[in-house]
Amino acid sequence: MSQTRGSSNRPATATDVARIAGVSQSAVSRAFTPGASIAAETKLRIIEAARTLGYRPNAIARSLITRRSRVIGLVAAYLQNHFYPDVLELMSRRFQALGYHILLFTADAAAHADPVMEEILAYRVDGLILASTTLSSALAADCRAAGIPVLLFNRTARASQVSSVTGENERGGRLIGEFLIAGGHRRFGFVAGVEVSSTSQDRERGFRAAMAAHGLPEPLRAVGHYTFDGAAAAARTLLSRPDRPDAIFCGNDHMALAISEVARFEFGLKVPQDVSLVGFDDVGPARWASFSLTSFSQPVSTMVDRAVEVMIEQIEGEAPVPRDVIVPGELIVRGSARVPAGCVSINGQLVWRPEGSAP
Amino acid sequence: MSQTRGSSNRPATATDVARIAGVSQSAVSRAFTPGASIAAETKLRIIEAARTLGYRPNAIARSLITRRSRVIGLVAAYLQNHFYPDVLELMSRRFQALGYHILLFTADAAAHADPVMEEILAYRVDGLILASTTLSSALAADCRAAGIPVLLFNRTARASQVSSVTGENERGGRLIGEFLIAGGHRRFGFVAGVEVSSTSQDRERGFRAAMAAHGLPEPLRAVGHYTFDGAAAAARTLLSRPDRPDAIFCGNDHMALAISEVARFEFGLKVPQDVSLVGFDDVGPARWASFSLTSFSQPVSTMVDRAVEVMIEQIEGEAPVPRDVIVPGELIVRGSARVPAGCVSINGQLVWRPEGSAP
Repeated sequence: MSQTRGSSNRPATATDVARIAGVSQSAVSRAFTPGASIAAETKLRIIEAARTLGYRPNAIARSLITRRSRVIGLVAAYLQNHFYPDVLELMSRRFQALGYHILLFTADAAAHADPVMEEILAYRVDGLILASTTLSSALAADCRAAGIPVLLFNRTARASQVSSVTGENERGGRLIGEFLIAGGHRRFGFVAGVEVSSTSQDRERGFRAAMAAHGLPEPLRAVGHYTFDGAAAAARTLLSRPDRPDAIFCGNDHMALAISEVARFEFGLKVPQDVSLVGFDDVGPARWASFSLTSFSQPVSTMVDRAVEVMIEQIEGEAPVPRDVIVPGELIVRGSARVPAGCVSINGQLVWRPEGSAP
Repeated sequence: MSQTRGSSNRPATATDVARIAGVSQSAVSRAFTPGASIAAETKLRIIEAARTLGYRPNAIARSLITRRSRVIGLVAAYLQNHFYPDVLELMSRRFQALGYHILLFTADAAAHADPVMEEILAYRVDGLILASTTLSSALAADCRAAGIPVLLFNRTARASQVSSVTGENERGGRLIGEFLIAGGHRRFGFVAGVEVSSTSQDRERGFRAAMAAHGLPEPLRAVGHYTFDGAAAAARTLLSRPDRPDAIFCGNDHMALAISEVARFEFGLKVPQDVSLVGFDDVGPARWASFSLTSFSQPVSTMVDRAVEVMIEQIEGEAPVPRDVIVPGELIVRGSARVPAGCVSINGQLVWRPEGSAP
């Protein structure tokens, strides 16, 4: 690769930059340290001088001194579900504003993240976030031994020294059950996500609790693995039955879109006249008129804020203790399920708040 | 942060691991170097020993010796469009298999990526990929000076020493024009993406060339900025006109979904009887029955393969020269636009190949 820095072969140093900019070396260092205190005008002059000289601060060498890489490892299994790209974009922006960046690792949805552990450790990440993957006890132990704080996003784990940020999975599942019961449905279906995920388990537990509380039979059940094609197959299974459900709780919105497609275009069913559908997440496409999906919300922005806050506290705090944060959601009512009494309009959105259920 | 490594305070070294595993230090080093030659059984034994001792190889220290960080910086502006999460997930998996990982930077869609340049340089990335952002000449020059290869994904730039991987933007735009003309339409509309992007410009140029070649009037025009809300607003502008288009080329699929929603649910129009819609990308939702979108394809998997290949060649090659790669696509015919003659079925998909247009 050709270099165009001119005749000098010696890379420019901070001392060179300081001399040209007429500042101290310490000011040069502060100019390139995210969050460090320095006057905007001075910083601009230093960056200009650095650009002229082709100087670049060496984050790697610096990290050997500060023992911080300013890298957050993020393990994701799949980005197909609209929820995760939203999370990733917001999380990247928030961390970036604090001088950290996300190093992306991809894992299999169903398997544990362990195959990438050696690499995660090799990059000496300051912290590790697992989104849409489960945590094995081996990985948890490795991170604990290495002093790397771990945060589960949209999952919980029983491992010690691990933090988590989730929505109200169990309460949301229960409210969806109550909502569908109040809508007069009697044959319920549940489409599970990844079976081993705490998220799918918690949502199902809440949903079943509602049936049980009303003495109603257990919901019919199929597994959609949180994928579009998996959910479509699960919908075909449930809707082919002679006793097909008149209401389906789809384990997340991404699966609900697939189930809506299959119900309407393959089975010729009307939604919600023939079958009511409710999702979980309240992501963008839920709002599209084609789907008009009733869904329990997981406020991405708040969840990301809390995740970044907890992670920074784990990295930079004096004696941080792991935290489990649950971010409240609402049952957002649209057109994909029959609407019972108990809906109120809040900030221009219809939400279901039966008496006594307010968070 | 509490450590649980036991009583020893000295971190384990490669020598310790070599002794326990009964191998040479060089074997330990190879075990932790992605792509290095080592027997699977030996590698397993070394990883087991490393785990027992709490040893982790130091990628940062190693990168100071090899002068490789094995980090690829990726600048993305937005992940809302389904195309980019697909790209990001595949790209991460491919790079990961080669021992590289993606460090994510977020930038504004409309602005240049420069605000993050100091940080990109500070991490000493081995290469930089810009997806969904434009490249300023200042950034191109900075990267050239620093010897960092740059690749534009889904964009081109006139800057020297920069590679690019794109779909067939101009040819695709022209084919879409020919397709809609052959379908008997006469009042055309175009919804542009981000105006400064080469992608939007190239697609529009091809589309206009088709109108011009047939002596037809120029298309009506609105700007959707590649966002869902922006495209919805553009659709309202075009469809409110007394001389509203009977065929709209939507600058990408993500905008086409929004335009389809507005046409059907706000204007009560039938697609394609009242208005034909064609998109660009052929991403997942284009295939959903709710939209059944005719679209010019950008094969994500092939585009990502070529991008990874070009980037690795730029990083590891002896005397690499920048490359501009154009990945061919097809006009995939579904239900959102009137279907003229000239369609053939290929691999179970209907594609439009008028005589003489085969790639």
